Parts: sequence; C-alpha cells; structure tokens
Amino acid sequence: MTELPTILDFASLRAMYAAGASPADVMDMVAARMETCDPAAFILKRSRADLRADAAALSARAPAPNSLPLWGIPFAVKDNIDVAGMPTTAACPDYAYVPEKDATAVARLREAGAILVGKTNLDQFATGLNGTRSPYGAPRCVFDAAYVSGGSSSGSAVAVAAGIAAFSLGTDTAGSGRVPAAFNNIVGIKPSPGRVSTAGVVPACRSIDCVTVFAPSVADGIIARRAAEGFDAADAYARRFGDAALPDRLRIGVPEAGECEFFGNDAYRRLYDKAAERASSLGAAVVTFDYRPFREAAALLYDGPWVAERLAAIEEFLAERPDSLDPTVRRIVEGGRAMSAADAFRGAYRLEELRREAEAEWAKLDALLLPTSPDITTVAAMRADPIALNARFGRFTNFANFFGCAAIAVPAGFTEAGLPFGVQLVAPRDSDEALAPFAAAMHAAAACGAGLARDFAPGTTGEPANDIVSGSGGGGSDTIEIAVVGAHLTGMALNHELTGRGARLLRKTTTRPDYRLFALDTEPPKPGLLREPGFAGPGIEVEVWQMAPAAFGSFVAAIPAPLGIGKLSLEDGSTVPGFLCEAAALAGAVEITGFAGWKNFLASRKKAV
Amino acid sequence: MTELPTILDFASLRAMYAAGASPADVMDMVAARMETCDPAAFILKRSRADLRADAAALSARAPAPNSLPLWGIPFAVKDNIDVAGMPTTAACPDYAYVPEKDATAVARLREAGAILVGKTNLDQFATGLNGTRSPYGAPRCVFDAAYVSGGSSSGSAVAVAAGIAAFSLGTDTAGSGRVPAAFNNIVGIKPSPGRVSTAGVVPACRSIDCVTVFAPSVADGIIARRAAEGFDAADAYARRFGDAALPDRLRIGVPEAGECEFFGNDAYRRLYDKAAERASSLGAAVVTFDYRPFREAAALLYDGPWVAERLAAIEEFLAERPDSLDPTVRRIVEGGRAMSAADAFRGAYRLEELRREAEAEWAKLDALLLPTSPDITTVAAMRADPIALNARFGRFTNFANFFGCAAIAVPAGFTEAGLPFGVQLVAPRDSDEALAPFAAAMHAAAACGAGLARDFAPGTTGEPANDIVSGSGGGGSDTIEIAVVGAHLTGMALNHELTGRGARLLRKTTTRPDYRLFALDTEPPKPGLLREPGFAGPGIEVEVWQMAPAAFGSFVAAIPAPLGIGKLSLEDGSTVPGFLCEAAALAGAVEITGFAGWKNFLASRKKAV
Repeated sequence: MTELPTILDFASLRAMYAAGASPADVMDMVAARMETCDPAAFILKRSRADLRADAAALSARAPAPNSLPLWGIPFAVKDNIDVAGMPTTAACPDYAYVPEKDATAVARLREAGAILVGKTNLDQFATGLNGTRSPYGAPRCVFDAAYVSGGSSSGSAVAVAAGIAAFSLGTDTAGSGRVPAAFNNIVGIKPSPGRVSTAGVVPACRSIDCVTVFAPSVADGIIARRAAEGFDAADAYARRFGDAALPDRLRIGVPEAGECEFFGNDAYRRLYDKAAERASSLGAAVVTFDYRPFREAAALLYDGPWVAERLAAIEEFLAERPDSLDPTVRRIVEGGRAMSAADAFRGAYRLEELRREAEAEWAKLDALLLPTSPDITTVAAMRADPIALNARFGRFTNFANFFGCAAIAVPAGFTEAGLPFGVQLVAPRDSDEALAPFAAAMHAAAACGAGLARDFAPGTTGEPANDIVSGSGGGGSDTIEIAVVGAHLTGMALNHELTGRGARLLRKTTTRPDYRLFALDTEPPKPGLLREPGFAGPGIEVEVWQMAPAAFGSFVAAIPAPLGIGKLSLEDGSTVPGFLCEAAALAGAVEITGFAGWKNFLASRKKAV
Repeated sequence: MTELPTILDFASLRAMYAAGASPADVMDMVAARMETCDPAAFILKRSRADLRADAAALSARAPAPNSLPLWGIPFAVKDNIDVAGMPTTAACPDYAYVPEKDATAVARLREAGAILVGKTNLDQFATGLNGTRSPYGAPRCVFDAAYVSGGSSSGSAVAVAAGIAAFSLGTDTAGSGRVPAAFNNIVGIKPSPGRVSTAGVVPACRSIDCVTVFAPSVADGIIARRAAEGFDAADAYARRFGDAALPDRLRIGVPEAGECEFFGNDAYRRLYDKAAERASSLGAAVVTFDYRPFREAAALLYDGPWVAERLAAIEEFLAERPDSLDPTVRRIVEGGRAMSAADAFRGAYRLEELRREAEAEWAKLDALLLPTSPDITTVAAMRADPIALNARFGRFTNFANFFGCAAIAVPAGFTEAGLPFGVQLVAPRDSDEALAPFAAAMHAAAACGAGLARDFAPGTTGEPANDIVSGSGGGGSDTIEIAVVGAHLTGMALNHELTGRGARLLRKTTTRPDYRLFALDTEPPKPGLLREPGFAGPGIEVEVWQMAPAAFGSFVAAIPAPLGIGKLSLEDGSTVPGFLCEAAALAGAVEITGFAGWKNFLASRKKAV
C-alpha cells in the first residue's frame, strides 16, 4: 500500500484505487492524518469506524474503482452546511441543531461517490474573512502558525492544504471561499450565485450566499463543482443556468494604479505584479480598468444594509442568547438593527447604479485579475483590531456576489518570508467553465504547488472551455459536406431534399459535447442546435452527407428561417457545414439535449401519445 | 375639415392627415375638446398656442404626413413623469419641481412625432389604485361620474377614454396602468419591467415601477410602447431585452373557483366568466390554476416591506412637509417607517419563495386571464373607506411587477348598470409582443368599443408579434440572392469572394428594424446580425448580390464559424439568404446597431485612431 501524497489530488487518489487500494484503505490513512492536523481545523472529525462504514457502503453501491465522478474521494464540509445526523454549529455551539437531511450540495457529492471526513471550523455564522472568530479556536495558515488561515471557511481550506481532504466545501458571501485559499496556497472555486444550491446552508446574506469548493487544482475543483451544482427547487435563489463563453484570447483587467491598494504589503504587491506579467505571457491582453464601481459595491456589503441579512438570519436566536455569540460577530450583526427598510431599498438602488457603472468597465474586459487578499496578518494582530484588518481582506472580493460573478482563486507564489499569496480571476455570471482553463494555466505558471505540496504540478484542466473550431469547410474540392440533425436524417420526412439533390451519406456521428439541442416552437417542431462552449452534454446525433456545390447551394437557399447553415464541430474532430438556428428562435423552445438526437426525441413523443 | 372621432385611434388620425389635415388643425380640435373634459383629468393643459407651435415644429422637422411612427399623434403624460420645462407635481403641489429634461420615454415619443397635450392627474405619488387621492380632484369614470376612474393613472386613462389623447403614459407599480383602463373601457399596456425607461419618473417603488401606455386598441398601444421602449443606461433597472415567444395556441389560466374573489360584485363575476368563454372560443385552451402564490405575492406590496420604497422615494420631503401629503397617502407611506432592513430582506426571501411556487403554475400555462379589478366603487364609498376598498382593486394586479410579467388590460364588456369591466392577460417577462395578438382578439371579441366610443372596432393588432418569415430562397430559378453585411460589401476586403464567384450586385437596402448588429470579439472583428422580434432599430445596411447555385454553395461552405447563412428579412419586404451568427459568439461582442451598418462602424473606428 502506498502512502497518501502530501496533497490529495484526484489523479493520485484514482491511481491508488486503480492500483488496488480500497476506499477503506484510503480512509484509514486519511483518519490517521486527520489526527495530526491543526486541532482548530475541524469541529467534527468522523471516526475511523464511520469512515470505514462509508467506504464499505460505497464499495457495495459502486464496486468498480473510479466508477463514479468522485468515487472514494475524501471531502470536508464547512460547519454551516448540513450533513444529516451531525450537528450544524455555524461555530456557535448554542445555535447547533442536528439536521435530518444533507444540504443539497452535500447530498449530490455523496451521491457522486465522495466520502465525508468531517465538519470544519469557520468564522462564526460565516461572518468574517480571517478565521479567528470561533469558539473552536483559530485555524492557522499551514505555512506559518502565527498567521491567520483566512476565513470564514478557515477549516475547509486548511483541510485541503494539509492533505486531509481532496476537496472541501466552503461558503462565500464576501470572499470566504477565496481568501482562505490564498492564505493556504490552494484553489478556491466560487461558482456564480445560483449554480450550487444553498438549501441546507445557514444563511449569512441569503440573497448572495454561495457554496464553494477548495481543491489542490482548478481541474479537481471544477469536477467537484460540477458534481455539486444543479438547479434545486428547494433553494429560492437557485437558477437554471447555462454556461457563458469567453473569447479565446482573454482581455484581463488589472486595476489602475490608484486602486491597487495593498495596505503597505509590498511583498504582495510585487507578487501581484508578477502574476499580471504571467497573465500576459500566457497570451492574455492585460489592460487596466477602473476598480472604483467594484470597490464601492464591495463596501456596501458591510457598510450598507446587507448586514441586516445577517441579522435576519439569526434575529430570534440573537435576541434570546446574545451572549452566545462571538463578541465581534455580535457587534457586526447587531449593526444591522440600525438600518431601516428604506435604507435597505436605497442600498439596493445604489447597488444597481454601481452595477450599471461597472458595465462600462466590463465592456473592455473579459475577466478581472485581482489580488485575492491584498494583505495577510498574524492572529495576534487580527485579534487586536478585528474589524478593520478583516475589512482589508475583502477589498477585492466583496463585490463578486453582488455582481453575480464567477471567481476562481489560484495560488500565485510566496513572499520571501514564506507566506503564500493568491490571485483571483473574476468574470461575469456563468463563466464558471470558460474561466477555468486560464485560471488553471495561471496556477501552473506560478509553479508554487498546492497547499503544503510546494512541488505539486497542478496541470491545466483537461477540459478546456474555449477551443475554437477551425474555419475551413469540409469535403473535397468538388463536393461539400453537410451535417444534418433533424428531418433530413435517413428515413425521415425531408431526407429527399438530400437524396433528390444527389447527396450521399458519408458517416453517422455526433457533435462534440458542447452542443445543446432544442425543439423549436414551430409547427411541426424543428431542431435547433446551440453551441455553448464548455457545455458538457451527450453530443447530438448527426449524419454527414456530401453533395455537389450547386446542390448544396440550392439546399441552403431553401432552408427557412429561423434555421441556417454554419459550421458544426463533430466528435470525430471534423468541422463541417451544418444547421444553426437564430438566437431569437430559442425563446419558447424546449431543450431536448438529454435525448442526444432528434430521432430519440420524436420516438419519446410517440410513446407519450 | 372632418371632426375628431369620438376616440382618437391612430388609423383615424392618420387618415385625417393623409386627407390633408395639418397637425396644427388637429391640435386645434384637440385643444377645443380638452376644454370640455373632466376638469380633474388634467393638472396641466397645454395652451392652443403651445400645441400649434409643436405642430409647426413637427411639420418643419418631418414635413411628410405620417412619416414618423407617431407623426402628429396627440398624447398625455401622467404628472409623475418629467416633461422639460413643465412642473412635475406627482399630485403634490408642494413637491413640484420643473425638470430640465424630458423623461426618457417622453423624449422617445416626441422624437417619434407625438405631440404632448398635457400632464394628467394621479393618485398622489402614484400611491393608490382609485383616483381619489389628489388635491387636484378625483377624475371620474367616463361612464358614470359617481364612480371612481381608477388610479393611480386616473387622468391619463380618462384623457384617452374621452378622446382627448390618442394615447397616454401612465405608471404601474401595483396596477396603476391597468385598473383605470378597466374602469374607462380602454386598453392598458403594462410592459415587462425594464423595457421602458423610468428615468425621469418620480419613483413609487423604484425596483418595480413601470411606465405604461393607455390606448384605444392593443395595436395602437403596442406601437406607442415600441416607440417609448429601449435600453436606457440612465435607468439602473433598465434591461437589454428581447422578445419571448408564446405558442400558437395559448394555454390560458383562470383562477380556481376558491381564488375567484369578486367581493360580491356578481355583475363583474358574470362578465369575467363570459371573457373566459370568449378566450376559449378564440381557440385558447382555458385551464384553471392555483392563484394562491400570486395572491400572496400581491399582498406583499402593501403588507410587506415594499411600502418602505415609497418612503425612501420621498423621506426627506415627508419629514419637512408632512402636511403637504394627502392624508391617506401619508398614512400609507409613513407605514414604511415601521419596517427594518431585516424585514426588507425577509420580504425579499418570501417573494423569491413565492416566485418559485408560482413556477409550478406557470408550467401549466402560457398566460393568465384575470379580472383587471374585481370590483368598482363610487367616489363617495372610496372616500369613506379609502384603504380597504382600494386594496380590492389590486387583488389581481399587484403581483405582476414582482414577477417581472408583461400585462395587457383590455375592455371586456359592461354591466347592466352601464359600468365597464376589464380583463388582463398576464404572461412572463418579455412576452409583450407575443401577448398582443390574443389580447387584441379578446378586445375585438368583447365588442364593447373603446372609451366613450362604444361602437369603435379595435381590430386585432396589425403587426402580429410572431410573423414567421417566408421560407423560400430569393432570386430566380438559376440564381440565388445573398445579403451581405460586412467585409463582403462593395469596396471591402472580402468583396472579391463575391466578384470572384461571378456574383452581381442587385441592390442596396437595409434589414428590417428588428435586427441588431454586433462587432464580434474576433480578430479582425466580424459583424454579427441578431434578429430580435419587436426590436426597433435603424435597420442595418446590406447589399443583395446574386450568384449561381454552385458559386453560392462554395461561398457558404467557406464561411468560418461562428458565422453562417440563414434568412434575413429586408426593409424592401424580401427575405433572402444572409449572414447569421451563432448565439455563443455574441458573448463579448460589442453592440454597434447605432451605426446602422458595418461601414459606418469601421469609419468611426478610423476616426478614433
């Protein structure tokens, strides 16, 4: 039996399983390592017996190694997220309750084969970015125990950085899923709000709370995020999301000099400048932008009425047990009492105005490259000045959920004093997939490993989001290929439009996975294909036909709106002319991607009749 | 010179202009009629001299009759909407100010040729649905002066119903753009929130306020709404909208019996049942649904924290001049003081939950058919019980803006006592265009005319929202036409791809107005055309070329992704093959519709360099 690697990346764990280790073997090793870790990291460590029981249950349910996306992958959960049968404390013992159900995100991850190792410490009620606001102690930066781990998802970050969990769940309202990643040299994936359900999560600011993922690499984090995310009717803020595209060559924004505040931390400033240089050398167009509207939105989170969301979440408990709260957390949450409903609406108006002002900056940019935190402090310093120093950490994170952004925090090197620094890539809503390749490249280029494994090579994600199809038309010089998807398929109503033009069937294949299929709201319904970079579907059934240019020309000219002929990227690697659909026609259309083809879809309708 | 018709529909006015009447002639007649109307309807009537001056200015600017969408059409504006140089009172004289600029919606309508006749009365600060809460008097139902006109847009509805304005602007937060339409036998168009700018409007609940249109017919109202709407960066709640489709055969929801509350008004109940029968006879599938989540959302508007938005809008004024307010309005607005910011957020959470619960009902339905108001009362009764009776009117309207809906209120007959009844069609966001044909058909089928013109035939909208372009390819049997828009235009870099294939330039024209043009984020930038039904742009410059089928075929096959060839609808009425673009490519693209063509856009870039 091999030993656990320093950091638990998915590839290493899968290799262990492929080489014959059982989940129970791995859980034994995880349990042993858990005993050695920062005692403040976990609020609840699962027993070796419980871990073995879960491992055995997995082996019974899915015997083949690696047969589920997260088969046998150990993970930890921040203790403001419900796990059935275990207390949820939110780092406030008197608040604790024992939920009957897993939070939706936890349930999905377990369903995907992940095994829970424990519940992690946090800034109480997820109020804080530093990790010291907990009666369970202050988890420390894994590189220097004098320094804070970052928060509020302090324990979840430490658990991954110390190689106890392969990934962990955090939450992020102000920046709690990113700042602790930066302070522990790991990746923090903050999904766009509404992608990962918050059902079963103790709210901080319910309207913008996100469940996040910590992992050793962007690739691992994205795999876990995909398993955790999905529409959930039980969360009123959940969305039916798609994936937004980003261009091949990213325009990356860095704040103009006047907005580049590092609070005197010149080591961090230098590391940030180096990160911007790396972005440029990786092919991005690095441009400056005005961070002001982002900064002003960020400031609203604690200076504006959103503090009252924290109050709304625990108002009754606070009234009954005020002394049960951490004094700093209590002071912050009670600040929400000073604000009226009119203040709340004025805050909302101001946020909308800032969102509009930020649009002018987004027009120049595809993504922002920002310091995750512009400073780090010791635990002692933080305890001496717990609000002002904490606020510094959120300078570049607090706006992201207000603006609906996706963000990925990645390691970006170490100071000469041995403290880690991180940067975040932030992009508009649902760019979660499209942002991943560049974030992974930035992590790899920083060459600082992951967590305690300074020599770990994170690689780039194996599933680039933005591969652009080649532009050439298929077919030989005297014929043209065309991929058909609907009524032109063999045996169907319009197939004669091909055969009648002397066309010849070349092959049957599917599109690449990044196509979605819709039944358009036409009579009869027509298929609408939509390419969505980063979308991972089943691929849509197509037939590739070949015909003479004149036949092809007359065929194209006869296609009625809203359909047209563009280029399709096929699973076999070819790019051939094929059906497109006008964007407007997708309004009212029904998505049928799950049928993986028009014929399957029609067959299902016949059965239903 | 003919006389003005009883109600000022656009077709009659255009016919007068076509027959030789000048705008000044028509304005003289409008001014004369304005003298005879309900004195409470207007807060400011423009003088005959001012009307003539505007008429003369229009004739100078656009001499040809009917050469602008609203050429010479008289309209009125609710006095919570700014008109440059005229006081905005919001029906509170002490609050009045004189704006320097027209509200965006007013500016757009004037630009389209409409002539303002006056500013109309309203429930003070648009707080009310009845029309009695104004120091300028209570406008009366045009059919019975004992009865309320409905509000808050009371005067705007009366002005149209009495044939003084061809259309008017109202606002609608709870139902103020619909209830007065019902009580005066006219059409009320309530756009989806964010389509018509609220810049220059005194807020009621700023987060959900809408500017609305009253008109004699759905067709006229839609024309005015199209002219008024459009993205406006000055309104933080404005959206870049598209048009959502509805199916050919609508599934129309009527509330289950237990939710069909008419407060004892059996005449209204019978008229509503008849309206549902008409919907069915017009081909809709009428199905019952559970109105509960809609009703509970509706109740939040006055029972929940949103009252504090009304307070936020005038808090300073109220503090300084509390006695300047109508006592009922003051009582309501001051109620907002009791609510905390935590209450505001809890209200927002509840609304999100109700929105989610309503989704289950929407899944069965395309549109709701609801009473606009379930009851009407006398002015005397309303004054005796001003809050409870007013609340009844909003029973079926108050949810619509919370849920982002489009709504169209249409006349639906008269009680035996001679009082009008109205129904509203309500459908999800941006169904504004798609909803119009059925709303128009419902109005026509009710056969109750418009306003005082009980024999007026409103017709169905002349511009159905879902006209499908014809599917045939253009050109003669041996050639194929293609419309080009970018680098293939004469004199540009890729024009040789046409001329080299023996293509011949047929004509230069533009697309229909419902196309938007984008500069795609490619190197070099490529043009992306997006058809958006209902979008009223300048039309995009195109050249139509003709070539042999084989040449066309090879041309199409060589077009690189994300472009393709579909069908374009051109201003000259033709539908020809032309360039489309994949939806995904529009991410990161810059809209350049304002340049009305690729050449203009490139020229502007050269100047900028």
